[in-house]
This record gives sequence, C-alpha cells and structure tokens, in this order.
Amino acid sequence: MPTMTTKPVRRGRPGYDLESLLQVAVKLFNERGYDGTSMEDLARKLGITKSAIYYHVPSKDELLRLAVDRALDGLFAVVAEIEDVPGRAIDRLEHVLRGSVAVLVEQLPFVTLLLRVRGNTKVERAALARRREFDHLVTDLVKQAESEGDVREGLEPATVARLLFGMVNSLTEWYRPRKGSDHVDLADAVCRVAFDGIRKS
Amino acid sequence: MPTMTTKPVRRGRPGYDLESLLQVAVKLFNERGYDGTSMEDLARKLGITKSAIYYHVPSKDELLRLAVDRALDGLFAVVAEIEDVPGRAIDRLEHVLRGSVAVLVEQLPFVTLLLRVRGNTKVERAALARRREFDHLVTDLVKQAESEGDVREGLEPATVARLLFGMVNSLTEWYRPRKGSDHVDLADAVCRVAFDGIRKS
Repeated sequence: MPTMTTKPVRRGRPGYDLESLLQVAVKLFNERGYDGTSMEDLARKLGITKSAIYYHVPSKDELLRLAVDRALDGLFAVVAEIEDVPGRAIDRLEHVLRGSVAVLVEQLPFVTLLLRVRGNTKVERAALARRREFDHLVTDLVKQAESEGDVREGLEPATVARLLFGMVNSLTEWYRPRKGSDHVDLADAVCRVAFDGIRKS
Repeated sequence: MPTMTTKPVRRGRPGYDLESLLQVAVKLFNERGYDGTSMEDLARKLGITKSAIYYHVPSKDELLRLAVDRALDGLFAVVAEIEDVPGRAIDRLEHVLRGSVAVLVEQLPFVTLLLRVRGNTKVERAALARRREFDHLVTDLVKQAESEGDVREGLEPATVARLLFGMVNSLTEWYRPRKGSDHVDLADAVCRVAFDGIRKS
C-alpha cells in the first residue's frame, strides 16, 4: 500500500488558514483604507468566496480586532518584560523604546493599521483606549526617570512620551525592510537621538 | 438716501468664499478621509448646492491641491528663510525645526491632511514629490551640520532627518490648540529632545 507521501501534490489554489487570510486582509486595509475595503474586495483578492472567509472569521470588524490586537499585544509584552526589573527607570524606558522598534519592524503592517485607527467603531475605540493606556505607561516611566534625576529639567513627561513615540511610530511611514538591515541599528539610532540628541557637545 | 450701512444685516445662511469653503472641506476630509468624502457630502455639510461649490472650485481634487499646497508652501517658506543665512548648518536646522512646528500648529488641519496623502491621484503624487523634496533639503542640512562637526558620529543623516520629522509630524496626532498654549514652548521641547536628548548627563 503506497504511503501518503507518494500521492501527487495538489496543485490547485492553495487554501487559506486564518493567519494567511489575516495577512492579506491587513495588507489590503493598509492600501485602500479599512472603511474602503469590503469583504467582497477581500474575497476577490484572495480568490475565494465570501463564505470561505466567514468560515474563519465572523466579520470584517473581527479581522480588524485580530490585527490591531496583535500590534497592541506586542507593545504590551514589551512593557510587561520590564515591570519587575530592578534598576533605573531611564534604562527601563530605553528597553521599552528598543522593544517597540522591534515590534514595529516585525509587525510592520499590523502596527501601520493600528496607527491609522480613528475610533469610528467599537473595535477601533477599544484599540484607541489600549493605545492611551500604553502612552500612560510610557509617560509614567518618563516621570519616574525624572524623579530619579535622569531626565533634563523642564521637559514635560507627557510631551516627552509623545515625541519619543512620534519618532518610533514614524517608522511605519518610511521604514522598508531590506536584506541585511536590522532593527537593532534602527533602535540604536532612535535611542541615540532620544537620549543624547544629535548635537555633538 | 440711506447709506448701505443702515441696511439691516441679512440673517440668512451665510455665503461661502473659497477660503471658508476650503476650511470646511479640509475638516471633513480629515474626519471621513478624502476618498470617503463626496462633493455631495461637502454640499450637505455646507448647506449649499453642489453647483455653488463648483462656482468656486472645479473639482474635489482641486480642493485637495489647494489644501496640501498651503501646508507645503508653509514648510518651503521656512526653508527659504534660511537659504542665504550665513553661519552653521546646525543652527539653520534648528530654525527649520522651529519653523516647521509653527507651520504645523498654525495650519494643523492642512498639514494633517497632507500627512495622510498616499499617492492615489496626480495631485497626491505631486504632494508626495514635494514632501520628498523637503525631506532631501532637511537631510542635506543634517549632512552639512555633520561635515561641520556639529552632529554626533555614527548617525545616518537621512535617518536623523526622518526621526526629527517623525517627532514634528506626530504633533498632528496629539497636539490640540489650547488657550495660552504656545507653539514656541512646543518647538522648545522638540528642539531640546532633538539636539540634546532627554538624558541628563
């Protein structure tokens, strides 16, 4: 009796699991806008029927939720890593910046989608609420670092947190993965500008 | 014969000139997305007919062009101010950063719209081309400052330019004008982080 491996490989259209479906959906949402993309558009892009999509996921909204939660879970995991780490807050802040750059590089389409969410639906508002929570955690770290005497005087912690993540989040606008490029180099550049500034003193 | 000024003020719906029409259009484009806003939507919002809009402007595309050009003209005017100024490039770079913050604060809805342009139409592609030109001018300033020995070693000028404008552009995401708040304070914060970093040495 022949083993399964001797059977010829089926050369038909490949099936999609939830993961590959999500990847294509996120790419399409980023290209055309979430609101501008229908399940019909997605089905056409995938070359499958709408009901084949609904087999995996109940709604377009749920695809968005899965996508933005992946980005947010990545960012919160970075914060969780330093929660119980002893030492100075400024070093924990650096860890969060570096980790966030890594998440952005590794989950670029997911974070790009997250940053475009404007709060039009329940899923979008939940994502914005988690973003605000993340911003508060970063602001608290800056405050703590300031109270430990490691931050220059006269800088408002909430503004600092926003400017630092202004830099980090801008990666979604201009960073394109290349062979040999490394998120460590990128994180180094972000941290040098953020912590030491560009001016040679 | 009574003078014109004694005539009672007409209390009907106010008319729109091109400027006030543009302001409302930009607000609506930012709320709903440019692609998601029709001239019909705009007419409804303004409480006038579509033909009353077409009296001022031939197309939605032309409204977008006027809006993004206002933002871009503001940014290029800042660069033009320093073109023939003697002195060190790092000081000219600081002038460009401060001036750009002022343009963002003063033309917030226009710059917000500009930063969301993705290049789907001729007008959008022209705007992206001008943005790239602006980025090149900033990168050249960073290069020059580096060659004058004023920038820390090991920072890639194009990356520096992008990170600095990542900070500046993030203002469109979080800055909301308040009474008594000042774009000078904001520019101070951006410049302190950009040039000196947040870490107290």
